[in-house]
Amino acid sequence: MTLIIKLKKDVSNEAIETFKQAIEAKGFTLKDIGSEETTMFGVLGDTKTLDVRDVLAYEIVSDAVRIQSPFKEASRSFHKENTVITLKNGATFGNDESVMIAGPCSIESHTQLDTIAAYLSTQGVKVLRGGAFKPRTSPYSFQGLGLEGLKMLYNTGQKYNMAVISEIMNKEDLDTFNTYTDIIQVGARNMANFDLLKALGKAKKPIMLKRGLSATIEEWLMSAEYIMAHGNHEVILAERGIRTFETYTRNTLDISAVLAVKELSHLPVIIDPSHAAGKYSMIEKLSLAALAVGADGLMVEVHNDPENALSDGAQSLKFDRFSDMMQNLKTLSHAIKRPLQ
Amino acid sequence: MTLIIKLKKDVSNEAIETFKQAIEAKGFTLKDIGSEETTMFGVLGDTKTLDVRDVLAYEIVSDAVRIQSPFKEASRSFHKENTVITLKNGATFGNDESVMIAGPCSIESHTQLDTIAAYLSTQGVKVLRGGAFKPRTSPYSFQGLGLEGLKMLYNTGQKYNMAVISEIMNKEDLDTFNTYTDIIQVGARNMANFDLLKALGKAKKPIMLKRGLSATIEEWLMSAEYIMAHGNHEVILAERGIRTFETYTRNTLDISAVLAVKELSHLPVIIDPSHAAGKYSMIEKLSLAALAVGADGLMVEVHNDPENALSDGAQSLKFDRFSDMMQNLKTLSHAIKRPLQ
Amino acid sequence: MTLIIKLKKDVSNEAIETFKQAIEAKGFTLKDIGSEETTMFGVLGDTKTLDVRDVLAYEIVSDAVRIQSPFKEASRSFHKENTVITLKNGATFGNDESVMIAGPCSIESHTQLDTIAAYLSTQGVKVLRGGAFKPRTSPYSFQGLGLEGLKMLYNTGQKYNMAVISEIMNKEDLDTFNTYTDIIQVGARNMANFDLLKALGKAKKPIMLKRGLSATIEEWLMSAEYIMAHGNHEVILAERGIRTFETYTRNTLDISAVLAVKELSHLPVIIDPSHAAGKYSMIEKLSLAALAVGADGLMVEVHNDPENALSDGAQSLKFDRFSDMMQNLKTLSHAIKRPLQ
Amino acid sequence: MTLIIKLKKDVSNEAIETFKQAIEAKGFTLKDIGSEETTMFGVLGDTKTLDVRDVLAYEIVSDAVRIQSPFKEASRSFHKENTVITLKNGATFGNDESVMIAGPCSIESHTQLDTIAAYLSTQGVKVLRGGAFKPRTSPYSFQGLGLEGLKMLYNTGQKYNMAVISEIMNKEDLDTFNTYTDIIQVGARNMANFDLLKALGKAKKPIMLKRGLSATIEEWLMSAEYIMAHGNHEVILAERGIRTFETYTRNTLDISAVLAVKELSHLPVIIDPSHAAGKYSMIEKLSLAALAVGADGLMVEVHNDPENALSDGAQSLKFDRFSDMMQNLKTLSHAIKRPLQ
Repeated sequence: MTLIIKLKKDVSNEAIETFKQAIEAKGFTLKDIGSEETTMFGVLGDTKTLDVRDVLAYEIVSDAVRIQSPFKEASRSFHKENTVITLKNGATFGNDESVMIAGPCSIESHTQLDTIAAYLSTQGVKVLRGGAFKPRTSPYSFQGLGLEGLKMLYNTGQKYNMAVISEIMNKEDLDTFNTYTDIIQVGARNMANFDLLKALGKAKKPIMLKRGLSATIEEWLMSAEYIMAHGNHEVILAERGIRTFETYTRNTLDISAVLAVKELSHLPVIIDPSHAAGKYSMIEKLSLAALAVGADGLMVEVHNDPENALSDGAQSLKFDRFSDMMQNLKTLSHAIKRPLQ
Repeated sequence: MTLIIKLKKDVSNEAIETFKQAIEAKGFTLKDIGSEETTMFGVLGDTKTLDVRDVLAYEIVSDAVRIQSPFKEASRSFHKENTVITLKNGATFGNDESVMIAGPCSIESHTQLDTIAAYLSTQGVKVLRGGAFKPRTSPYSFQGLGLEGLKMLYNTGQKYNMAVISEIMNKEDLDTFNTYTDIIQVGARNMANFDLLKALGKAKKPIMLKRGLSATIEEWLMSAEYIMAHGNHEVILAERGIRTFETYTRNTLDISAVLAVKELSHLPVIIDPSHAAGKYSMIEKLSLAALAVGADGLMVEVHNDPENALSDGAQSLKFDRFSDMMQNLKTLSHAIKRPLQ
Repeated sequence: MTLIIKLKKDVSNEAIETFKQAIEAKGFTLKDIGSEETTMFGVLGDTKTLDVRDVLAYEIVSDAVRIQSPFKEASRSFHKENTVITLKNGATFGNDESVMIAGPCSIESHTQLDTIAAYLSTQGVKVLRGGAFKPRTSPYSFQGLGLEGLKMLYNTGQKYNMAVISEIMNKEDLDTFNTYTDIIQVGARNMANFDLLKALGKAKKPIMLKRGLSATIEEWLMSAEYIMAHGNHEVILAERGIRTFETYTRNTLDISAVLAVKELSHLPVIIDPSHAAGKYSMIEKLSLAALAVGADGLMVEVHNDPENALSDGAQSLKFDRFSDMMQNLKTLSHAIKRPLQ
Repeated sequence: MTLIIKLKKDVSNEAIETFKQAIEAKGFTLKDIGSEETTMFGVLGDTKTLDVRDVLAYEIVSDAVRIQSPFKEASRSFHKENTVITLKNGATFGNDESVMIAGPCSIESHTQLDTIAAYLSTQGVKVLRGGAFKPRTSPYSFQGLGLEGLKMLYNTGQKYNMAVISEIMNKEDLDTFNTYTDIIQVGARNMANFDLLKALGKAKKPIMLKRGLSATIEEWLMSAEYIMAHGNHEVILAERGIRTFETYTRNTLDISAVLAVKELSHLPVIIDPSHAAGKYSMIEKLSLAALAVGADGLMVEVHNDPENALSDGAQSLKFDRFSDMMQNLKTLSHAIKRPLQ
């Protein structure tokens, strides 16, 4: 049983009969679960296709509540074991280790990217991030190097044996991303770009799906469901802060979301403290908290020269801060017996 | 002057000098506005291209605030007169009348659309809405009739001399929308799909830009700026409710946003009470309020058979309710001396 | 039936039996409403005293949902007719007219209050507001004239035959408020000050209960329930804006809340546009919208000299603006056939 | 300089002069910081007493922004060293250790409290929590044992050498709390009950100030300022989750708030994961994250029989879970070199 429907008071038997027939004509069975003072039904059948709001269109309905999650492929009820995703260089999400992803917000030049990647590889980082197509709030801001940037990322990854991740903004770029990246990222602003999600169901690479600024955990998992229902079961979720009334931080990191995802789903989930806080001074402590809460990984912005970064300088770590952080993350990882890759 | 920068205490003169040179190298002038206890600068120059967050990347900066809006084309400061947008059949947004847009959430069949349009034209409605490409939260829900639906909409509009509006989800559909619609709608979930916005800067039709679920008014106007900066100055804004902690209504209608937009911008702004409330029982009263507050129009979902609608039945009006509402809206419009088209 | 309980999968029959006995020992009856794949129960009995969260304490419970409102005295289900509240000078809330309440944020001096009241009485305003005990965010701001101010308010009301309303902050002031006011106001910050609410259940005057900054409509009605359950059934609700991510306005006016309250409750509900918008420029339009949506009244801040007001100058109307507004409100009231007192 | 004021365009010199005189008459100095196209002033003087909104009351003002925090006693700018608060049994907040506070939500009986305290003392817990006066959402729920409960708490604390903390709801209970508790707690719903805060400025015990459900960090610190400005400098802040659109957890734990408080203030800050999550299953992981992020302590609900608890059973830990958690917290504390008391 997945939906509970409560009718208004003083509805005629005839109206109830018409309603029952209408719902049953859609292929569902109604079970009478009412009591003396309330007329109620439970809906049996595959209610993935019956929405609470469809039922509320009937004037005799007072209330309807869903009592089973509307997603299936992404749900732990239907798939008990954790999904584990392994990249070509061995970096693994969803097992008993956690993964550090790091790199610049935007790819700005060959030199910039190479400098950063060279440094990160000395730190043991296995996954390199870098934006080539940038969703910027202002049309007057740097919009990314595009394809050229993506190729730089690919080559740099090859050079240092790092897997690479970058954000896709258009479904027509899918072939390019299949070729040049190891993980395809969907940004927060595109979490509910359903056409893009459908296309990514056909991608040959794992998808990292960021949570939308005001997406509930259920909606986020429904977006994962879109990708999975269209064929791609390798989805990594990324919590990156949600929008609330608090403005001291850029967003509010919803650290409990990691636990919620672990209860509701079998997919790996990481934390991006850089976009959550929006302040370099908070990254290390939030990263420690992310590992402590059980995140499967971290994604952190690092820059050789944040003050001249073309985007997100305010939340990027300099090399020395990153090195200090890695030291402390490893100590904590060791203590909680979940090694950091 | 557009940005104010406050430095941390106890910063060396040398560090300040380096900072000033860095900012000035980017083409801005710094004006010293500090007092004895605080070092502060005002930034002169076209700060559209300098973001608060760029400045916060400098470790010596304590705080930075913008004191001028980051948009220009969309701003009333730069364009005092209201933008007025007139469609081929005379429907006009932004003048001293207001416009009713109505129709089904989704186009479901020729018969459904024709029935609704025939009815609406008897009510004097000049703009017909209907979704052909549908952004649905669940991959298992009806996804729209696509191009076939859009052609139905076009033909139905022709038949009843109604202008038509429908939602675009992909930039590759732009030619199709240029051909078959009179207004191209950007849905709330795509408000920050910047690639789509850029493409719509080249559209031949006015754009209706819905406010994102958690978009600030400033971000919404920045999205309008994207379209305008790329060439299309005919943008109509649509407030459709924002996401808050309250769940009794589907979204929280931010009726004050109409007034905010009128202060900040010259663009027309309408209200969509259907998506805001999510309940048919609230549409009429919210529509009355929308006209009273000064909205340039309304967009309302109407269906001949909401209980069997393929989407949004719960918030669609039946014909008799719509007729009653039109009567009351006209009475109010007459009283406030702003006729409803 | 008021609660639905869903158990986890694979729970032993013994555990289920223990659970049933525990709930039944609390005086409730469980009705089996499960199906083949799900074990579910409906709870019969007076579930006002059984909370969803009490049930969730049991480890075998997967989910519990309430399907009946937790309030009773405030609920329209239990009291179909509108509550109508009439003050000594005839001002009436909840009938087919609406009421204007106006006055300064803070009572600052005899002269200030008298000047404002004299003016308002020429405008036909029947209820005078004025704060004597002020909840100020900063300990360094003006905290109100206290009892002296309350007496000024009382005397001024007498002089102009206006009923008066002021905010109570402490239950020990109840006798004073019973003596000197006609409506006792509970501020947004005290909406969940349950001790104060209980005390107001013994008040001899109607209570105006403002909605808390982040209170759901259900929580707001539960606070009304506190007052009513302790003996005072004359409660007027006041929507004054909620806290959201939007900061252009001081708060976000949730105009749909008026409609929600009308559906869920029989109590009168008014709108305070001054605190919602926080800007004098928006008051008139929001007031028009408030009447259009069906509010039972308005509460507006008016000041003879806003620029020197000791509080809330930014949202107070000058006399000439208020006069213009009253003119327009009356025109609209006349059109919608709901006179403004 | 603390406020920046920007005037509207095309304001007459005369109006500017009048404005300047008005502000200066209030005891402030205005510094001209405008440029060619904008008239701007900086305000010098003790702007604790001048609010942004006071300035916005002037019609010629376009915008005003505060560039210095409105609190002083609570601010790290004015008091660089951490405040350290030590209780009679040695438990210390704000030094290089962290403190575990645990106990039942409500004190229900002597037996219940003694059972729990006896257990907790075996775990090394130094501070015992227990509610005697309970702020319950429903008037029909258990409201606490009151004074009798508080005495039980005091005696139990004595017996096991634990300091005790309980929530105050009314200022008239202050003497009682001075006598029977070691820390006086202000609940989230009373964070802006300014009369209570003023009274607590005269308390003889440290105050634990919970963050309000929708309070910004700045407002929270302003409430601390109220207590401090009235004489009591021993304030411990407690983050317990904020209200957002997400409903999977009871509230959204804002873990970054710990870092924000550490930047802005010198006061100790702890985390209450029980009220944040509202689910016992999440408490351990969130507690680990809280220590990792640098919180000065934790407050956790523990019950010998959560299923029959009179309040908050759903978020209370059983003894065995608590013991496991303590083990893991100690391991992590050891690793990060910040012992847990």
